[in-house]
Amino acid sequence: MTGANFIGYKRSALGSATFQTIDPVTGNNLEVSFTEATIEEVDLSIALAQSCFSVFASTTLVDRAQFLNTIADEIESLGDFLIDRYCNESGLGLQRAIAERTRTVDQLRAFAKEVVKGDWLDVSIDLVETGFSPKRIDIRRMMKGIGPVVVFGAGNFPLAYSTAGGDTASALAAGCPVIVKVHPSHAGTNELVATAIVTAARKTGMPEGVFSSINSHGFDHGQYLVQHPDVKAVGFTGSFSGGMALYKLAALREEPIPVFAEMGSLNPVIVLRDVVEFNTEKVTDLLAESVTADAGQFCTKPGLIFVEEDRKRTFEKLLGQKITAKVAKVMLSPQMCQRYESLRNDALARSGELHYASEGKGLNVGSNTLAVINADQFLANPEWNQEVFGPFSLLVHCNSSDDIQRCLDVLHGQLTCSLFSEDYDRAFYMRLVSRFEEMAGRIIWNGVPTGVAVCGAMTHGGPYPATTDPRFTAVGPESIRRFLRPVTFQNFPDELLPPALQNLNTLGIRRRINGHFTVENVSVC
Amino acid sequence: MTGANFIGYKRSALGSATFQTIDPVTGNNLEVSFTEATIEEVDLSIALAQSCFSVFASTTLVDRAQFLNTIADEIESLGDFLIDRYCNESGLGLQRAIAERTRTVDQLRAFAKEVVKGDWLDVSIDLVETGFSPKRIDIRRMMKGIGPVVVFGAGNFPLAYSTAGGDTASALAAGCPVIVKVHPSHAGTNELVATAIVTAARKTGMPEGVFSSINSHGFDHGQYLVQHPDVKAVGFTGSFSGGMALYKLAALREEPIPVFAEMGSLNPVIVLRDVVEFNTEKVTDLLAESVTADAGQFCTKPGLIFVEEDRKRTFEKLLGQKITAKVAKVMLSPQMCQRYESLRNDALARSGELHYASEGKGLNVGSNTLAVINADQFLANPEWNQEVFGPFSLLVHCNSSDDIQRCLDVLHGQLTCSLFSEDYDRAFYMRLVSRFEEMAGRIIWNGVPTGVAVCGAMTHGGPYPATTDPRFTAVGPESIRRFLRPVTFQNFPDELLPPALQNLNTLGIRRRINGHFTVENVSVC
Repeated sequence: MTGANFIGYKRSALGSATFQTIDPVTGNNLEVSFTEATIEEVDLSIALAQSCFSVFASTTLVDRAQFLNTIADEIESLGDFLIDRYCNESGLGLQRAIAERTRTVDQLRAFAKEVVKGDWLDVSIDLVETGFSPKRIDIRRMMKGIGPVVVFGAGNFPLAYSTAGGDTASALAAGCPVIVKVHPSHAGTNELVATAIVTAARKTGMPEGVFSSINSHGFDHGQYLVQHPDVKAVGFTGSFSGGMALYKLAALREEPIPVFAEMGSLNPVIVLRDVVEFNTEKVTDLLAESVTADAGQFCTKPGLIFVEEDRKRTFEKLLGQKITAKVAKVMLSPQMCQRYESLRNDALARSGELHYASEGKGLNVGSNTLAVINADQFLANPEWNQEVFGPFSLLVHCNSSDDIQRCLDVLHGQLTCSLFSEDYDRAFYMRLVSRFEEMAGRIIWNGVPTGVAVCGAMTHGGPYPATTDPRFTAVGPESIRRFLRPVTFQNFPDELLPPALQNLNTLGIRRRINGHFTVENVSVC
Repeated sequence: MTGANFIGYKRSALGSATFQTIDPVTGNNLEVSFTEATIEEVDLSIALAQSCFSVFASTTLVDRAQFLNTIADEIESLGDFLIDRYCNESGLGLQRAIAERTRTVDQLRAFAKEVVKGDWLDVSIDLVETGFSPKRIDIRRMMKGIGPVVVFGAGNFPLAYSTAGGDTASALAAGCPVIVKVHPSHAGTNELVATAIVTAARKTGMPEGVFSSINSHGFDHGQYLVQHPDVKAVGFTGSFSGGMALYKLAALREEPIPVFAEMGSLNPVIVLRDVVEFNTEKVTDLLAESVTADAGQFCTKPGLIFVEEDRKRTFEKLLGQKITAKVAKVMLSPQMCQRYESLRNDALARSGELHYASEGKGLNVGSNTLAVINADQFLANPEWNQEVFGPFSLLVHCNSSDDIQRCLDVLHGQLTCSLFSEDYDRAFYMRLVSRFEEMAGRIIWNGVPTGVAVCGAMTHGGPYPATTDPRFTAVGPESIRRFLRPVTFQNFPDELLPPALQNLNTLGIRRRINGHFTVENVSVC
């Protein structure tokens, strides 16, 4: 590890400003001083990305898949060195580190498979009559990458949503060069993974510029990148304020560009009376774990729990005890912990005296907390719509299903909504689900929202303020759509078409010919 | 015709401000005074749209298709009354009126077919292992409408891109209620078509609020609609300044929403030396017609023609003569004609003396014009990137293929690029096509860009400033994607899932089950 940026294939550290990362467990600076990129280095990274774009976009599907697979191999071959640095920089445990590495390499290999399968190319070939000039014309469409993409490393997923995470994997799969803006709290993990990507790019003969990594401690580099005319899209996972700041900068450029920002969520959970009566033990187990796992630092942590129960408050008491009993964890960084304590204290000030909390012991440890209010209190204060990122949840007592519906009506857009119930009024179920559909990207039945499966049917997204664009998912193969645009070729000679559109289906991909899906060749009569 | 708005099912004219439309041929006001909507009427139209959204979104595919087909029927049954009003308000001829009506009803019926076919639902059903909570989970995704959509009527397509045009048809197909902001130059055509839509909605039992039509003469209503919190997306076809103003308003709302604005294009055409030598007659025929048809008032009109020819300038002279010889047409409105004359005069002032022009005869007639410059002149002035909407094109003489490439390098995003050539250097072809792909949504070989076929492989879109988002098309069945968002259901009881996601494939649609496309049922073991 050198602390340098990667500008294309080269390590580069021309600047004078440096920063170090911190072990949140000890509060000490970690080894290696990271050099922030200069404007010239940032410009060069974008120039390299732009100039290699058409070459990278026209690599064969097999070669591009090979690149992605090789990144996965190179990440694995970093071995314990990567895992150690990950744990030191994040305060997260060994088991989580290993699981997240697995998720990261699995994601890269899944995209490699998708790239070759070719469904994402969305090939459509029509031989049609046109009304305006009534003759038979030949129209063929495929998707291609949108251009250089800037990816912001996410604080809470140093591997799976950072340097070689979902945004990078989907952008590279789309044929878009990627420039990563490091998350300053895990610049070392970033450098190791960036090394793996650059090594893989060289080994598989990808053009220089396909990847760069920019060290940065503040906001300047990110703002500059998002406003650069040659950057064509942005992927971000993080805070609401950060995501919206980038979104607005991008919208106010001369050429506006899409910013997909995933900005977190309250992830409301509804627990209906039948569960409270018959299933409290199991559901409180699930929720206590989901609220506190890895110090609640997941965008899908359940931050809001509506419980329909009577005055005995059995569910509340049990959940409160279980949350308090979990070992309180070190948070990702001192800043994250300070922010958590501040938002948690605000919430407790609003909620009044009733709450359950573990005593925060040790440096940067976030106290596991369940605050308790009733539906009227919830409805009276719109500040309850603010996410408290960390091991905190708000339990809202509801006297009736009407209470629940009134609360749901004032909620904003969410990544997820969950319902715990097994034996209730079907009409009420349908009303709830209808509201969930309107409000969220994913709806979960008798389960917790944490644990986002990487699969084709996943939606990790949702209406504002969960994201800046509800039309896309940030997880799973469909996330590639964020970085693709269609191009249509009209009446082209076969030999000048891209391979995916030629008469002979040499790629063996599924194509729509005159509206019908087929892997056959186009027959030209 | 009454001049009223449609607020839901009801004609409503509570305001005092009125306007009339103008026959551009005579300059006279046409019959019927249109009453601008009041803020209360606009609010009510949005409230109705919002409150009917979940009902409309859950109509069956067959019922929704029936609604679209019935709109088409009702438009046809308006008969000559619609055609006459269209011609009077637009100055366009009978043949165009009939062709555009055909395009409009065909589009509606095509969407009806697509709705039932169900590919747009993008159903994906996965039974997967999740790494975080390692058990088999059942994850099912489908697309649903994004919410109420505002559609702006387009000046140059009073039928096909206005009240019941492509934007409205695709939004309704997606299950989104539509509020049309009338184009003030054809408010009568709008009212007739709005009547057809409302009649169809009543006949097919659609909920009130699924469609409203707002009369407006200025910018206020449009700005208000785009900023309203319950509006979730916008479709616009028109000027760059109009599109960008709406885009920025939408981006700066508290909840940003997608605006798909198609803002026109220069549609560069390259004519290589081999064509000039052997095919001048045919290509100049095609281009002269494409530049001047319907007074050049198409977003795909070729406004920029790069010709590689020698000093004899045979191609230029022949094209100039043919463009001049075409009958100059009345433009859509006095304002449109004034704007055309102003931009045309600016262009002629920049280009110098050499140009070909028909004398504009009669009121609101736009002079057919070909201005001529060389590559150096083109490169020297970025103002050549501005579209001159009307029967104008700029011919740029290029001495070499290098000249052409230098010119292409400075062009902005385009809807289309066209190449005329049959026998040239393959390497140069490939370089050109690579640049075209980067720059445009559609690339045409030996053909003109006008005449946008409505088919699955069409892309009517492209990089900025052609549109505000290159990831979508505004024409063809894929245009529905602008108004769809994914929703995922996790571990749901089968009977509570939407029909498209249930085990039994009662809709008979194509679904992806564990990554494989099939029309089979889901087998649950």
